[in-house]
Formats: sequence, structure tokens, C-alpha cells
Amino acid sequence: MQAEIITIGDEILNGQIVDTNSAWIAQRLATLSIPIVQISSIADRKPAIVGALKDAEGRADVIIVTGGLGPTKDDVTKTTIAEYFQTHLIRDPQVLSHVQHLFERSGHKDMPEINKQQADVLAGAEVLFNDVGTAPGMAIKKDGRYYAFLPGVPFEMKFLIENRVLPFLTTTTQGIFIHNEHILTIGIGESHLARRIADIEEEMPDYIKLAYLPKLGLVRLRLTAKGIDKHSIINETQQFAKRIIERLEDHVVVTEDLSFEEVIVREFTRESRKVATAESCTGGQIAASLTAVAGASRMFEGAIVAYANKVKTDVLGVDAVILEDYGAVSEATVKAMAEGAKRRLNTDYAIATSGIAGPTGATETKPVGMVCVAVAGLRETKVNTFYFKNDRAINIERASVAGLTMLWNLFVKEKSDILK
Amino acid sequence: MQAEIITIGDEILNGQIVDTNSAWIAQRLATLSIPIVQISSIADRKPAIVGALKDAEGRADVIIVTGGLGPTKDDVTKTTIAEYFQTHLIRDPQVLSHVQHLFERSGHKDMPEINKQQADVLAGAEVLFNDVGTAPGMAIKKDGRYYAFLPGVPFEMKFLIENRVLPFLTTTTQGIFIHNEHILTIGIGESHLARRIADIEEEMPDYIKLAYLPKLGLVRLRLTAKGIDKHSIINETQQFAKRIIERLEDHVVVTEDLSFEEVIVREFTRESRKVATAESCTGGQIAASLTAVAGASRMFEGAIVAYANKVKTDVLGVDAVILEDYGAVSEATVKAMAEGAKRRLNTDYAIATSGIAGPTGATETKPVGMVCVAVAGLRETKVNTFYFKNDRAINIERASVAGLTMLWNLFVKEKSDILK
Repeated sequence: MQAEIITIGDEILNGQIVDTNSAWIAQRLATLSIPIVQISSIADRKPAIVGALKDAEGRADVIIVTGGLGPTKDDVTKTTIAEYFQTHLIRDPQVLSHVQHLFERSGHKDMPEINKQQADVLAGAEVLFNDVGTAPGMAIKKDGRYYAFLPGVPFEMKFLIENRVLPFLTTTTQGIFIHNEHILTIGIGESHLARRIADIEEEMPDYIKLAYLPKLGLVRLRLTAKGIDKHSIINETQQFAKRIIERLEDHVVVTEDLSFEEVIVREFTRESRKVATAESCTGGQIAASLTAVAGASRMFEGAIVAYANKVKTDVLGVDAVILEDYGAVSEATVKAMAEGAKRRLNTDYAIATSGIAGPTGATETKPVGMVCVAVAGLRETKVNTFYFKNDRAINIERASVAGLTMLWNLFVKEKSDILK
Repeated sequence: MQAEIITIGDEILNGQIVDTNSAWIAQRLATLSIPIVQISSIADRKPAIVGALKDAEGRADVIIVTGGLGPTKDDVTKTTIAEYFQTHLIRDPQVLSHVQHLFERSGHKDMPEINKQQADVLAGAEVLFNDVGTAPGMAIKKDGRYYAFLPGVPFEMKFLIENRVLPFLTTTTQGIFIHNEHILTIGIGESHLARRIADIEEEMPDYIKLAYLPKLGLVRLRLTAKGIDKHSIINETQQFAKRIIERLEDHVVVTEDLSFEEVIVREFTRESRKVATAESCTGGQIAASLTAVAGASRMFEGAIVAYANKVKTDVLGVDAVILEDYGAVSEATVKAMAEGAKRRLNTDYAIATSGIAGPTGATETKPVGMVCVAVAGLRETKVNTFYFKNDRAINIERASVAGLTMLWNLFVKEKSDILK
């Protein structure tokens, strides 16, 4: 069984929004061993919708379509698919009363016709009732294929996938088994890593595929095996994973499918260690990335985003003389910031960043992309200077990952020092 | 002229990474009035690559392909496209010496063959020299079509689009003219907005299309007109935009293609007003979204992310009695947080948030998604309680947008009060 995702909406083609739905859907379908063969983003126009459905039918058994179900004039999806499946639209009374209820609950009266149209569904389709929004989903089974049409609003789409689509697909998957092993590494580049494990990779059978998934300072390795004998597939993939893990040693952070932030939140919580950040050039990004993880409050105390120098001195207690002598972007300053945050917020660890994110702000000796990062730990403070490139967003993200990487390395070192 | 984007890489199909490249490319091509007809993400396998190129040729004159050019074993793109274009790979000496240089500069020796292969390009293709990375791009002109093959690393892809692809395409666009007008609105939902301007939309000629681009509390309207007579196209689109702006009045934030954060940074800088944030449930997200804008340092002083209650009292100066009596998630607490941040960081305005982001943390009276937001301004502090839904990431984002919206409304009100 193979799936394809079609996202409908001019806003994706125009670049106004990034399609985050498809990655999420792909991850969820992977849990049922259903691979995605193609993701296509198309316009909400009849020929594009018809063409994409026909193309997808040549490749996939499961076709998930998101978007194009909104209440405004520029959505032509429903009428197009009604024609495509040789049926017509009917107004679903249960959905209509749900839409009416949501409309009135938000304090409005006299629901306009445009909203009532949300209750129109394809005659003959199974209505995927949308508890969390107004646009219902629809499922159609035809010629051995399963089609799901879902709203593009991420929250609503997710609800319908979890509660309507996956439960149905679970009843239909069988035969081929897929197994994944994950290895998250830090501190080693993609090509060096590839060279270090080239011989192991060479020995892998055809049905195990090794993917390198690099992302700004981290490289995730994924071994994907496909076959009929579940037991031997899992066993063999784990053997290869184990050899790679032994080879890469200290670079391996975790062997589960977790984000770096999720691992940090989990391990600091386990060790009852508290963390704070003092951020200049990263502007709160490190704090935001940690607190995006549910349960971060168990290990994250807070952050002081010290964009202005006055905040560095007044709130973090950085000595004005240090700022004067070395400048805001200096190892001396970030060291004082990290130690100040640790003291001020009373934590075990603190990360501090200061740099020239760009595109302006460079000086003769401090180019755009220069970032100083410090991590204060239980016993010592580590400081590093990085030279990234010219893109503001990437510099901020790279500095954030560098801060988390230094935090992780010091945490692991101090944990093992204590055990000795 | 129409374009299509193909992204190659199992990591997109597996949902490990979100394709942000395509939206960026679409935005850049829009400046040359080149619309994107389809975006396809496919596997780095020969049949998928060949199939996607053939499909795209049926729809587009410009085909931009990203990804699949990395130095590891799982990239088959180059050999596949060499065969597709009936040519072969040659090692480019200039690229090779560039790759060698970058390799040695990073402190390594003995460049492995895998890295040397980065210098292999299609014989007959124009090499798009990559100043900022190791993988070169390639451009091919065939049968009236232009193909660009680019690395998937966003920073390198962007460099090659800006410096190699756009300069070439600029020399070829002609004929059809496209004009966009943008209207960014806050505080009004998509369907209400649609109803408010239905009569204006009804009057629009076929060659002007109105798109609603809603995004968590904001709705961006875009009028896109297409035609040959540049002058009348611009004129007529502006007339319709003007009527919509007059109709929507206070909901309109800006009529340029700027993000809400960009407008806030620009307008606070113009008025010399300083901003700080005191964030609990948003965890630094508001600070990060403002500091993502270049030049934010002119109006943003800093933030105190007060995840722990102790930070709320010790750093922000929130009265422990208030926390005790009303709880951390309360209007009284966020009011004290906002006023504390304004005082502590010495700014004109401060935003504060506290809420139950979820999935845990709810109490009998405080459900997941309940968020209190306060904005302290020059003369007064506004406070509001919102009830969002059950998704942690969306609750954080909605709370951030709510904070920025309240900040903007108070800023506009106080600016007009002062003028009176």
C-alpha cells in the first residue's frame, strides 16, 4: 500500500504559507508502514485538481487531499470533486447543526449562506465529522482506492487524520512490514559521518536503506528496512544500528525518533537539573524551542533575552567594564551572561548567546555570522566562538543548536565526572 | 511563462523535514510574475525523478529542482538526470578546487572521493557556481524549457536562485503582466471578512482574483491581476484594494507585503517606542518572532521568560500574594507581569502571557488553551483572556499573535490619543 498527498491552495503555490501538513501526515502514515510516494501542491482550479487526482491514481492506493474546503469564493474543490466522482453535493443536516452551533457559540447571529455551504458534502461519500472545526472531511472508496478530503487548517486536519483516517487505514494494512531505526548525532558533519561508517553501510543488504537527514549541526540517521518477515527485519536492522552507534560513540545523542530538544527536556528532568538561557542574538529562540516540548516546565526555569546592553548589565549583572572592554559580542560577555543567568534564575545550567545575526551590525573585527556561546554548568563554564554565514534566520538557528549542543556535551561530561 | 518546483528527497516524503524551500522560491519567482503551477516532492529514485520531470514538462516552461545533490550514497539525482538528458558526468576543475578549498579551510585533510564527486556536473549543462557551499547547481536549456538543478540546503539554494537563476529569468520574462495588492487584517475572521466585502468582490472583473490567506488570527487579502496593459491593471487593482481598505477600516494593519512582525518593528522604530515581553506560556516565542526581523534591536529591549513562578516574583516583581490568590494563569498575574517587564526593562510597552499550553496542566477552572494576555502601554494596561484549543504548538502561536495584536491595537490607540 502506498499513499500520496495532494494539497490544494493558491497560498502554497504563491509561497504565502509553507506546507507543514504534509510532513505531519507522512509521519503519521509511517506508523502504519504506509510510505508516501509523492506530495503535490496544486492550485484550487478544476483542471489542476482533476489532473492531480488522475496522476496520483497511477501511483497510490491511498490519496489524502487537504485544503480547498474553506468558506470563501475561491475554493472550487467540492464542486470539482463532485463532478470527478460523478455525484453531487447534498447538505448534511448533522454537519449543518454543528456549524450553526459553533457559529452561535462564538457570539454571532444570522449565519450567512457562505457558512451553511460548509455543510455541503458529496452524496455517497462518508462524512468525516469534524468535532473541532466547521469544514467536514469526506472519504470515498472507489476502484480499490481510498480518498480522504480534509480541511487545510492544521488543527482540524490533524484531528480528522487521527480520529477518522488512521482508524480506517489500520484495518486495511497488511503484508509488507517496515521497520525504522533512528540515530541522532551531533558534532559531526554529514560527509565525515558517511566516511566513518562507509564499510558498515557497504555491508547492508538491499532491503535496508540508510538515509542521512542533516539539519543545521545535527545529522539524523535512519535505517529503513522493508520485508515480509517482521522478526528478522527488526533483528537485522537493529544489528546494523548497533554497529553504527558503537562506531560513532560520543556523537550519538539518542536512538529513538525524538528531537534534540525532546531528549534534553527528558534527560534534564530525569537528573533533576534546571536550565535557563540568557539570549542576545538568538532573541528567545532557544527558550522557545525548549518550551515547545510538553513538560519543559519540569526543567526549564526561564530566560532573559538581553537584546539591549542595559538588560545585560541591569538584569543579568554583566559587569559594564566587560562590555566596554570586550564588546557585547565576545567570549567574556557571554561567559558573564551565562553565569549571571544561572545565578539570577537559580539553575544548574545556563546557555548564553551573543552575536551578529545580520544582515547589518558587522564591524571590522566582528563579521556577520560571528556568534559567541557560553554554557555555565555545575562546575565550569565552556565558551566558544562560531563563524556562521550571512543568513539571519539560519544564524539564529545555528546559534541555538550550538547552544543546545554545548549544553548537552557539558551535561554528559559532568554527569560522568560525578559518577567517577 | 509558468514554473514548477520539484523537491527531491526521502526526508520530505518521510515527514522528517518540512519543505520550506518551495514557498521561498515561489515568492521570489512571483517578483518576476512567474506563477508556480505545481510543487511536487518526490523520492530520490530514478523512476520518480524521470516521472516528475516528464509530468512537469506538460505544464511548465521553467522547472526548478532542489535536493538530491548531497555527497552521500542515497543521492541518485545526478546520474539519473545525466541519463535523462542523454549526457554524462564530468568533473569540473573549478568546482573541484572550490570544494577542496572549503574542505581544507574547515581544518580537514585528505578529502574523500565522496566529496570530490560534488564537483561532478552534467556535460553540456551550465554550472551554477555555488560560492556558499560545496554542491554546484546546474542549468539546462532544452526544447524551449529552462531547468535548474539546485542543492536542497536552504542557504545554498537561496544563493543560487538569487545570483544565478533569477538574473537569467529576468532576461526572458515578457508579455503577461501580474500585479499584486496586499491587505493584512487583524481581529476579524475569514468568513465575516468575506461577508463584509462580498459586494466589492462581486464587482471584480475576471482578471482580478481575490485570495483569502488566513493564518491564526490574521487574514491576509491578496488581489492578483493578470493582463497585458500594465498601467490599467495596476490602476484597477488599486481601486478595488482602496475600497476594501475603506470598508475594513481599523482591521487593516498594512497594505504592503510585510509580515505583522515586520510592521510592528518598523512602526515602533518610527515612533521611537521600545518594547519588552514577559512570557510564560509562549516561552520566548514572541521575543523570537520580533527579533527574527532584521533591525528589531532598534525597538526591542529584551524579554523575561518567566516559566517558573519564582522568576515571576524575583525578576518581574510580581507580588507573591497575587500569584497565591489568583494563580499564575490569571488576568491579575499577567497585568503584573506586563507592568513589571515594562518597569524592569524600562520600555514604553510590554506584552505578558500566561496560560495552559497543554497537553497537561489543566485544572477544573482553567482548561488547556486558556491564555491570559496583557499589554502595558504608555498610559494604560489592557488585559484579555482567550480560550484556544488543545494543540500545544498552535496555542503558543495563537497566544503570540494575540499578544502582538493587543500590542498593535494599544499602540495605534495611544498614538491617535496623543495626536488629539
